[in-house]
Amino acid sequence: MYKSFDIDNGVVEMNHGGGGRAMRKLIDELFIYYLNNEWLAQGNDGAVVPSHRGNLVITTDAHVVSPLFFPGGDIGSLAVYGTVNDLAVMGAIPYYLAAGFIIEEGFPLAQLARIVESMAHAANRAQIKLVAGDTKIVERGKGDGLFITTTGCGFVAEGIHLSGDQARPGDVVLLSGAIGAHGLAILTQRDPSIFTAPIYSDSAPLNDLTSAMLMSGAELRLMRDPTRGGLAATLNEIAQQSHVGIFLNEESIPIPPEVNAACELLGIDPLNIANEGKLVAICAPNDAEKLLSIMRQHPLGQQAMIIGKVVTDENYFVRMQTLFGGQRMVDWLFGEQLPRIC
Amino acid sequence: MYKSFDIDNGVVEMNHGGGGRAMRKLIDELFIYYLNNEWLAQGNDGAVVPSHRGNLVITTDAHVVSPLFFPGGDIGSLAVYGTVNDLAVMGAIPYYLAAGFIIEEGFPLAQLARIVESMAHAANRAQIKLVAGDTKIVERGKGDGLFITTTGCGFVAEGIHLSGDQARPGDVVLLSGAIGAHGLAILTQRDPSIFTAPIYSDSAPLNDLTSAMLMSGAELRLMRDPTRGGLAATLNEIAQQSHVGIFLNEESIPIPPEVNAACELLGIDPLNIANEGKLVAICAPNDAEKLLSIMRQHPLGQQAMIIGKVVTDENYFVRMQTLFGGQRMVDWLFGEQLPRIC
Repeated sequence: MYKSFDIDNGVVEMNHGGGGRAMRKLIDELFIYYLNNEWLAQGNDGAVVPSHRGNLVITTDAHVVSPLFFPGGDIGSLAVYGTVNDLAVMGAIPYYLAAGFIIEEGFPLAQLARIVESMAHAANRAQIKLVAGDTKIVERGKGDGLFITTTGCGFVAEGIHLSGDQARPGDVVLLSGAIGAHGLAILTQRDPSIFTAPIYSDSAPLNDLTSAMLMSGAELRLMRDPTRGGLAATLNEIAQQSHVGIFLNEESIPIPPEVNAACELLGIDPLNIANEGKLVAICAPNDAEKLLSIMRQHPLGQQAMIIGKVVTDENYFVRMQTLFGGQRMVDWLFGEQLPRIC
Repeated sequence: MYKSFDIDNGVVEMNHGGGGRAMRKLIDELFIYYLNNEWLAQGNDGAVVPSHRGNLVITTDAHVVSPLFFPGGDIGSLAVYGTVNDLAVMGAIPYYLAAGFIIEEGFPLAQLARIVESMAHAANRAQIKLVAGDTKIVERGKGDGLFITTTGCGFVAEGIHLSGDQARPGDVVLLSGAIGAHGLAILTQRDPSIFTAPIYSDSAPLNDLTSAMLMSGAELRLMRDPTRGGLAATLNEIAQQSHVGIFLNEESIPIPPEVNAACELLGIDPLNIANEGKLVAICAPNDAEKLLSIMRQHPLGQQAMIIGKVVTDENYFVRMQTLFGGQRMVDWLFGEQLPRIC
């Protein structure tokens, strides 16, 4: 396949971004080789794809994770799942993905191929098609290996209105599984000397789980995936959008022991750590148990828990009953504790 | 407005990307301040927007132009027009834009505000709404000020099938105006000492022009905007996709005198230079004059010309009758002549 393009030993060069023959080669022999489908193959300035019933849902995420490879994933799978999950928690079926690559001159083609292959695998798993792409090359020292910005398009049925402003006092807060693994998977890679056993990212596509939740008929108010800023930021955002308070029960929040241990070592609150394969759902009180049981039947929701409830609070605070019997505020961080986690 | 956020003297810091309060501030007080609309204001993980009739068209472009500001535009306006034009040449009406920002730590907030304001102005001019965005911050030395990846969504009527593989021998090739200005506007900024008078980028949204062309009823085969690689790359791509040759008449290709002069000085062929407010159209021979007159009635098509025709050529070559009476090949470049022009 790679007759004139040394995938094993070559690196990305400035001329791979020039709009000429070298760029054509990179696109054909690497990107299209792994990602091809009928729409990407159109080869025009835009991909023309079938529309579907309902409203269009659009989301975008720039991915700058460092390092590019980590236990349980890489920037390629993360760039797919991150965007798929933003569509899924809106109640949409993800259909189409676009990806813009910003590559630093000198980046090994073998690593690029590994990442693009990983994207193809992730897109396949999430049942989404990459239909449009773009590649730009920047000079050595003007980037950091590879950045990938993905944009997702999906369609949501007319009757579904999930939104951060829909939580009401009395509603129940559910979490699909244990938190903290993704952020710590990245951190342990940055300084492997501290950690004896790797922590694996929970990075996974949630659209199959959200479909099951929507089909359950439970009165869902909203879903959201607690990425940057962690569960704390996500719940604070919801509280502010809905003008409510949220009261959590620490005991019911699943945190793996290795995440707890690493957090103690690093002095980090697991509630502030980014996840990429978990979701928060808020639903009407009467449907909470039914929804929980549906979630637990799904491989990605086996550890789902009811973690708290929505309350009236004119300050829109998130509070938590701690393991020690007291209460504490769950605030979002002001600063940057964990840079470039996604 | 900017009580606690020093837009005039402040810089972007790592904590503006952390998912906490600082990021919320940057988003609310800068991005939403300039770009707000009912869909962006939803503040959820994805924007839910109305669908329209016809097929969905999706396109994406990473923008890494250097310098960020140049005569006639900046990375903000370019990121809007570049994506709008990719939708327009597919025959689509552009509706929605998503933008992912990758910002280097230390980037001046005042420059960021100027660029976001420019995006807002460009989006307004192109009648497109920015409905989804994302911001990531990378450490000093790991980026180059600012990269913006924009993704556009539009809808194209069912009956319209413009594609690079639709050109047929006998068809006529039209160009909407003079070429070379955008690429040279960037180049002259990089080394202002060489050039006494600035050359202004032709960067502009083409969707109003393409609407007029589509409504003319002319039998259009395809449209394409000659960006990276210039007119030469665009025509070679079309020739390969359609399995035809293209024969150009150099005399009829409009090139501004200042572009010609700068190209001679730099040893660059104007046919290889990126444009961002021009389009190539290929149509059935009987409709060429009618289409030309429609294009000339539009402000962005006043200098439109018939520049050549599609011919049978089993090598899919692009050739040109030169001003001196000879013929030459018009090839795309192998390498990178003009890095980071878009």
